Amino acid sequence: MPDKFGIAIHGGAGTITKMSMSKEMEAAYRTKLSESITVGYEILSNKGRALDAVQAAVMIMEDSELFNAGKGAVFTHEGRNEQDASIIDGSTLECGAVAAVMRVKNPIKLARQILSESEHVLLSGEGAERFAQLHNLELVDADYFYTERRWNQLQKSIEREKKSESDYSQLDHTPDDKHGTVGAVARDAQGNLAAATSSGGMTNKKFGRIGDSPIIGAGTYANNKTCAVSTTGHGEYFMRGVCAYDVSALMEYKGMRLQQATDLVIAGLSEHGGTGGMIAIDRNGNIAMPMNTPGMYRAQMSNDGLMEVKIYDGE
Amino acid sequence: MPDKFGIAIHGGAGTITKMSMSKEMEAAYRTKLSESITVGYEILSNKGRALDAVQAAVMIMEDSELFNAGKGAVFTHEGRNEQDASIIDGSTLECGAVAAVMRVKNPIKLARQILSESEHVLLSGEGAERFAQLHNLELVDADYFYTERRWNQLQKSIEREKKSESDYSQLDHTPDDKHGTVGAVARDAQGNLAAATSSGGMTNKKFGRIGDSPIIGAGTYANNKTCAVSTTGHGEYFMRGVCAYDVSALMEYKGMRLQQATDLVIAGLSEHGGTGGMIAIDRNGNIAMPMNTPGMYRAQMSNDGLMEVKIYDGE
Repeated sequence: MPDKFGIAIHGGAGTITKMSMSKEMEAAYRTKLSESITVGYEILSNKGRALDAVQAAVMIMEDSELFNAGKGAVFTHEGRNEQDASIIDGSTLECGAVAAVMRVKNPIKLARQILSESEHVLLSGEGAERFAQLHNLELVDADYFYTERRWNQLQKSIEREKKSESDYSQLDHTPDDKHGTVGAVARDAQGNLAAATSSGGMTNKKFGRIGDSPIIGAGTYANNKTCAVSTTGHGEYFMRGVCAYDVSALMEYKGMRLQQATDLVIAGLSEHGGTGGMIAIDRNGNIAMPMNTPGMYRAQMSNDGLMEVKIYDGE
Repeated sequence: MPDKFGIAIHGGAGTITKMSMSKEMEAAYRTKLSESITVGYEILSNKGRALDAVQAAVMIMEDSELFNAGKGAVFTHEGRNEQDASIIDGSTLECGAVAAVMRVKNPIKLARQILSESEHVLLSGEGAERFAQLHNLELVDADYFYTERRWNQLQKSIEREKKSESDYSQLDHTPDDKHGTVGAVARDAQGNLAAATSSGGMTNKKFGRIGDSPIIGAGTYANNKTCAVSTTGHGEYFMRGVCAYDVSALMEYKGMRLQQATDLVIAGLSEHGGTGGMIAIDRNGNIAMPMNTPGMYRAQMSNDGLMEVKIYDGE
């Protein structure tokens, strides 16, 4: 189907259950996911580029307090917001990525600027912010990223850590708070694929930790030959597994279909003890959104009429 | 051959030609490469771990002024030394990586410490240096990394840039100065694989650029199922191609042999305009060291008696 086009988005995976969610929060998430996917889809249905669609969809989520990216980013141990993002054009393999930026309002916009204007792939820290400034991207004060919910999460995490110095692994039992990420993948009517991911990282993270979101091949990948992928979850496992690229490699080298390849990569993640999920779209417009967590905020929309917004596993 | 073991190292690839090299410099490089590979090989022949062998071999090169890593690291635009490194254990897929550290004497030692002591994979900047300090790794003042050769390279690069603002690509014609990196891959007598890479980055680099050296899958990869790989060259191309992992994927999913897989990945690099090389060892102890540049500092040594130190292509 040469002109089938579509988009899928995620807003993070983790221990998201009906029990832990108020009706109001659930409605807020579904509304914002619908808005994000609609904005991306509109671009595609107007013959726009997959690259523009994934960026626009991600920016809607970055501007929302609901997701751990942009405005809603979690706090590091030092009470700062250090954000990571990446974007890739499957038609050229051109990509842009940014790590540990603190003052950029929309990290995915900066990643896109790096894709188009820099000879580099990955810029970090203050240097990346200077690049943003040179290219007239919007910088904000630290208090733009202050949200009561995320601040309270940090305080709780620090308290838990103090109580259980000897059992640091306890911290890992709140993956929703710790590992949220947003992302989008799309195929446009011209047959081009693109993927984008943006993350506020982990609550209470230390030592300048960089996750999988800015790593091409781990958190984000796209190639017109195969598929586009964006991941969310415990980033370290996605980095060790080179998970986003692995989906593409299984399709290209083993001839697997998208659903089979994404399922296999998530199974490998489970085997190593990693948790999370991914969204992916292939060169024919098929979409897969597997996870091994109780929930993943996600949505998909294609020109065959399919539009779905889901939160829980098996929904 | 279950007990075949061996190690390969590189000290950077680029426009390294007999014409551009004095006899003294050439001798110095060959001596240091011999020292590095011998130190790594000794560990293997004493039934030591591949992980220890690659770390030790890389540290010898980090401590030398000759290579763009550790002591001999090139300068950023601001006159600083920002270093990247990574290491991976092919038997567990555990890995450690570090980006943009300025005061750590041996970045590969810090990467190894992250592998063994941190729940994270990639730490960056000042945070990574705090982690190094907590673990009693040696920190040094900025002037430890001052070498006249690298400082002059920066001044030349800045001058060239001023002269040719409109032709920024001219800068890319000195890949030796810009893209040096060191690395090692090994298979130990127990059949475990490991890879390590360390880099001073690019002369005159700006905006907190991070290259492929700290990226698992791009600059470094190892998996007991397939091979261990360390790359060197124009890092952005290795990041877009997810090159180190791609060698492993071609072997695992397409059943390719090491030489065929590494040749194919370097051919793909050439197709996209990238320059560089890689060293790799497979689960049977076979070694491949392809490049598309005039030279790559490299050496290999196996228990079948093979020991080679080479600089130029075709040597």
